Amino acid sequence: MSDKFVSVRTDLALEAREYYTEKNKTDVPGIKVNEFRDGKVWVSRVEVVNDEGERIIGKPKGTYVTLEFPEFVHYDGESIDEVSKSVAKELSPLVKLQDSMTALVVGLGNWNITPDAVGPKVVSKIMVTRHLKEYVPDSIDEGVRPVCAIAPGVLGITGMETGEIIRGIVEKIKPNLVICIDALASRKTQRVNRTIQIGNTGISPGAGIGNKRMELSEKTLGVPVLAIGIPTVVDAGTLANDTIDLVIDELTKQATTGGPFYKMLMDLDRNEKQRLIQEVLDPDLGSLVVTPKDIDKVIESVSRIIANGINIALQPALTLDDINKYLN
Amino acid sequence: MSDKFVSVRTDLALEAREYYTEKNKTDVPGIKVNEFRDGKVWVSRVEVVNDEGERIIGKPKGTYVTLEFPEFVHYDGESIDEVSKSVAKELSPLVKLQDSMTALVVGLGNWNITPDAVGPKVVSKIMVTRHLKEYVPDSIDEGVRPVCAIAPGVLGITGMETGEIIRGIVEKIKPNLVICIDALASRKTQRVNRTIQIGNTGISPGAGIGNKRMELSEKTLGVPVLAIGIPTVVDAGTLANDTIDLVIDELTKQATTGGPFYKMLMDLDRNEKQRLIQEVLDPDLGSLVVTPKDIDKVIESVSRIIANGINIALQPALTLDDINKYLN
Amino acid sequence: MSDKFVSVRTDLALEAREYYTEKNKTDVPGIKVNEFRDGKVWVSRVEVVNDEGERIIGKPKGTYVTLEFPEFVHYDGESIDEVSKSVAKELSPLVKLQDSMTALVVGLGNWNITPDAVGPKVVSKIMVTRHLKEYVPDSIDEGVRPVCAIAPGVLGITGMETGEIIRGIVEKIKPNLVICIDALASRKTQRVNRTIQIGNTGISPGAGIGNKRMELSEKTLGVPVLAIGIPTVVDAGTLANDTIDLVIDELTKQATTGGPFYKMLMDLDRNEKQRLIQEVLDPDLGSLVVTPKDIDKVIESVSRIIANGINIALQPALTLDDINKYLN
Amino acid sequence: MSDKFVSVRTDLALEAREYYTEKNKTDVPGIKVNEFRDGKVWVSRVEVVNDEGERIIGKPKGTYVTLEFPEFVHYDGESIDEVSKSVAKELSPLVKLQDSMTALVVGLGNWNITPDAVGPKVVSKIMVTRHLKEYVPDSIDEGVRPVCAIAPGVLGITGMETGEIIRGIVEKIKPNLVICIDALASRKTQRVNRTIQIGNTGISPGAGIGNKRMELSEKTLGVPVLAIGIPTVVDAGTLANDTIDLVIDELTKQATTGGPFYKMLMDLDRNEKQRLIQEVLDPDLGSLVVTPKDIDKVIESVSRIIANGINIALQPALTLDDINKYLN
Repeated sequence: MSDKFVSVRTDLALEAREYYTEKNKTDVPGIKVNEFRDGKVWVSRVEVVNDEGERIIGKPKGTYVTLEFPEFVHYDGESIDEVSKSVAKELSPLVKLQDSMTALVVGLGNWNITPDAVGPKVVSKIMVTRHLKEYVPDSIDEGVRPVCAIAPGVLGITGMETGEIIRGIVEKIKPNLVICIDALASRKTQRVNRTIQIGNTGISPGAGIGNKRMELSEKTLGVPVLAIGIPTVVDAGTLANDTIDLVIDELTKQATTGGPFYKMLMDLDRNEKQRLIQEVLDPDLGSLVVTPKDIDKVIESVSRIIANGINIALQPALTLDDINKYLN
Repeated sequence: MSDKFVSVRTDLALEAREYYTEKNKTDVPGIKVNEFRDGKVWVSRVEVVNDEGERIIGKPKGTYVTLEFPEFVHYDGESIDEVSKSVAKELSPLVKLQDSMTALVVGLGNWNITPDAVGPKVVSKIMVTRHLKEYVPDSIDEGVRPVCAIAPGVLGITGMETGEIIRGIVEKIKPNLVICIDALASRKTQRVNRTIQIGNTGISPGAGIGNKRMELSEKTLGVPVLAIGIPTVVDAGTLANDTIDLVIDELTKQATTGGPFYKMLMDLDRNEKQRLIQEVLDPDLGSLVVTPKDIDKVIESVSRIIANGINIALQPALTLDDINKYLN
Repeated sequence: MSDKFVSVRTDLALEAREYYTEKNKTDVPGIKVNEFRDGKVWVSRVEVVNDEGERIIGKPKGTYVTLEFPEFVHYDGESIDEVSKSVAKELSPLVKLQDSMTALVVGLGNWNITPDAVGPKVVSKIMVTRHLKEYVPDSIDEGVRPVCAIAPGVLGITGMETGEIIRGIVEKIKPNLVICIDALASRKTQRVNRTIQIGNTGISPGAGIGNKRMELSEKTLGVPVLAIGIPTVVDAGTLANDTIDLVIDELTKQATTGGPFYKMLMDLDRNEKQRLIQEVLDPDLGSLVVTPKDIDKVIESVSRIIANGINIALQPALTLDDINKYLN
Repeated sequence: MSDKFVSVRTDLALEAREYYTEKNKTDVPGIKVNEFRDGKVWVSRVEVVNDEGERIIGKPKGTYVTLEFPEFVHYDGESIDEVSKSVAKELSPLVKLQDSMTALVVGLGNWNITPDAVGPKVVSKIMVTRHLKEYVPDSIDEGVRPVCAIAPGVLGITGMETGEIIRGIVEKIKPNLVICIDALASRKTQRVNRTIQIGNTGISPGAGIGNKRMELSEKTLGVPVLAIGIPTVVDAGTLANDTIDLVIDELTKQATTGGPFYKMLMDLDRNEKQRLIQEVLDPDLGSLVVTPKDIDKVIESVSRIIANGINIALQPALTLDDINKYLN
């Protein structure tokens, strides 16, 4: 049935796969998976290898690495550093640069909306070196790679498509690699601020928790584009809807197969339910999100994890200590 | 049955009443209610008049005024001013001060956690005049009342019970009235940042969305205490639980009374459900809240509404224009 | 003597002229001046008309309008609006756009350094409309002009020359006019945050209080460039040096012309003095600036003045009330 | 001559002493001095031992330790930690507490004015433990001392004398020691943000760069009061005036003693000069201060130095690493 192939709306390859396997009791065809533990981090590398995988996962052929880590990491400086190193370990093989090549780090999202501010916050913690290499090369170790960074703001702030801005800058600066960071939405509260996705196929239109419509990819920018995404919220409507599904699934398990109750549960159309929920709960539920109460602190922590993951991956000649000293 | 009188855990008198009337199809005994529209605002004045009302509503005998207004108010400067005036209209009769008497405004909550920062933010917008009246009385209109204000921070920031701090200050400063502002939790997403509760019985232990255990009331401070509360979040667990109740209620309506399905639905213990949900959904769901995506902006707006409501009520000799000019 | 033509190092045409006329007791040749009062604002329009004027003023041929206003303006909302209107009045004739033409507003400077943050702060208060005109034209009045805006950050933050970034964006977005805002240094404390300079010749290399080396002009961007500058600091070294000059001038007046004391004062080489001062006072004086104690508040106010000056000039179909409502 | 004993207006014992010794070519009578280098820090311990010392230094009998360090410290994390340890070394002998005794840390000053915000910023970095010791003693090492902290805001923000607020809190909380932190003004730009003064006689009326009139001392609070002050600005008027003095001193050295020029220089009354300067330079010079351009960053750094100095001194059972881990 075609239903099998309908992928759920999610920015995470991991969730698309999860949704498929739950429905179909078999793994997604057209992908290769490698899962393992790295200290506190659960890593899953998914490679989408053909068109079928592409259709089911909802993402272009390429590599998608997901790192999942426990919540307490945000409250422990050493664990933050550890997860940064795991991020760097996964990011490094995707950064295919020679020593003197330049990377441009782009922080997407709106700095005025805390859960959407992770991209700009990462940029503020990137070790920016391109100007030093160019103007005062003696002030900096020879092994340091030229890195530049910008957080251009979103359409509602600039009045310009972010894609256009980045394209204009890339044409002038001519970096050899672009790394984009963006906040995502997840379907599961367990993932919020605890999952980092790294992909080597750029950012597709419509992704992100804000209203962004650019595609940033090798096709549009002319250089390889890595995308790092982190779910920072769950839509309140999604939480409500998924809760309902859960109840119905529980009740279904308890009902006699084939009985009238079972039949009634089967008849519930899931889309109709969501509409019902939204009407009953709150017509404005769509503008509500589920976040940690101390979202400001948590966004600060995930930004540090991602920024230092990038810093380590881009500067193999330096240690995390060097980087921290430089940034301070 | 005793069940009838079990009140739901909520900081809002309005919600306690709602819960009771839904269960019992009759209004709460021991309260007097007056509901009306004031421009964009729906006002409900509840007076708890006896012990039975007190037990059901879960709040001491006294007056509880609730103002509800639509979401768009936050995005329109004129509507913000209008709602401020409605707040002042309800607050004024509770402010029983002679002209020369001093009011102390206390902002409760944690300024580092945006949805808990509404109290401190209100304090930063209060027209503070006590020092001018005392040291440079000629610099200020004679009709201006002495007002002072403080946001002491929460237990985790100061290491001291907020109640102790305020008691110490009140004993030195000897105000004639204390007005406390605090962020609350609501059960319904529709109420978040759209409902203001004004009460004349102080703040009870355990209220608020943070970990606060003080009682600030006439009994502990020796002067009348008005409490202004605004729900700024719904606990994610509450949203999940209420969603389940909704589904079960819907299914119950459709089931044949007395049939096995109906019986099964009736048998579901609501507390057990919540535990189940939290386990299945996320063991850390307890630290998650539902908020608007643009929470920073919305908290700014509700703080302005409440602060100017207080400013107008405390300074009957001034217009809102005077106050805004003074504060700028 | 060639000395006559040595212009002092200043970003303000006004100060270059002042310096010349003090030295030479005659006005600068090659410029046309028009000075008048506009309410609380003292306006001076200087037109540099030939090469001699260019050399003395230190700026290319073109128009330089300076608006000076008293300090209290920053503490009075109505006066802020008034000065905004004066800025708009001077800016409007320089904005030579047809109705449907697009303006790009560029905020230069470093948002992490308060006195250098005026450009980014102005951008955050600009009425950005280009995306609405493009995607939801019905949501906005027909008479509204498309405006976009960006604050790209400084070289030390991005690793990229700001000029390159802006050039890249201009080539993609193709605006018909660019307006740049930047913080300047002044020689006189009286001018700090009380003087706004508007010029129609762009921004020259080396201007600004940060380390910026781009030229943003019609020559480099291909479209007309207006520059709005505001002195937000005086270098502490300049203050010290100018104070010394003042003392020497005072003593010189009192000394008998031709006497040994007079001769000695005449012999003091002003450059040598500055070096002396810096050594004696503080080897790091160069990193110190003179600012108002409440610099955060004052920068907020000057940003509002400039932003609304631009908003009014770019949107002749709207009133300041409309603009404020839109921005809120 | 009585002139010899006129002490210059300064908050720093060090500067009062310097002024006296420059004038009188002999050290202040009634004080004992111990000066030495501690790594990057120059330490001077001044003990005021009798009334004469008190009159000349302008501070009550007691101990005043000054730590001076070079500017680059602010830009190097390791040096910041080193200076913190030097602060702790000087502070520790003044903290005469038994293990279970409670310390209250009070951050004076206005958080809205960056150079006055150092007190509140220090408080935000203090290891607050009193509530843990009281409510969850098992969650924390036994050797940890109970510490609480508050930044009450200034008179213009609260409408209440800070002294009254602190007195009220001290009476309720009953700490065994109070440590106050405040921003000061210096006469010398070299000292700005590079000098920390620790005194064991409390804070006298009129001190501080804001308008504060409380006395916080053992006399008024009933418990020992340590005061930590840091000059964060030089008044622009002071800089101008001191520059003039410098010029005159230079010229005087070059003039023939007894000649008419020498006589004229001698005749200049220094107070008159300051008035002249202020008139000529800027009638509002009084509201201007000299600060580093990157004042926000520097205030952050000095706050960390002082906070960790206090943290180490109050928690001898912990290392700086423990403290940093706890605070993160």
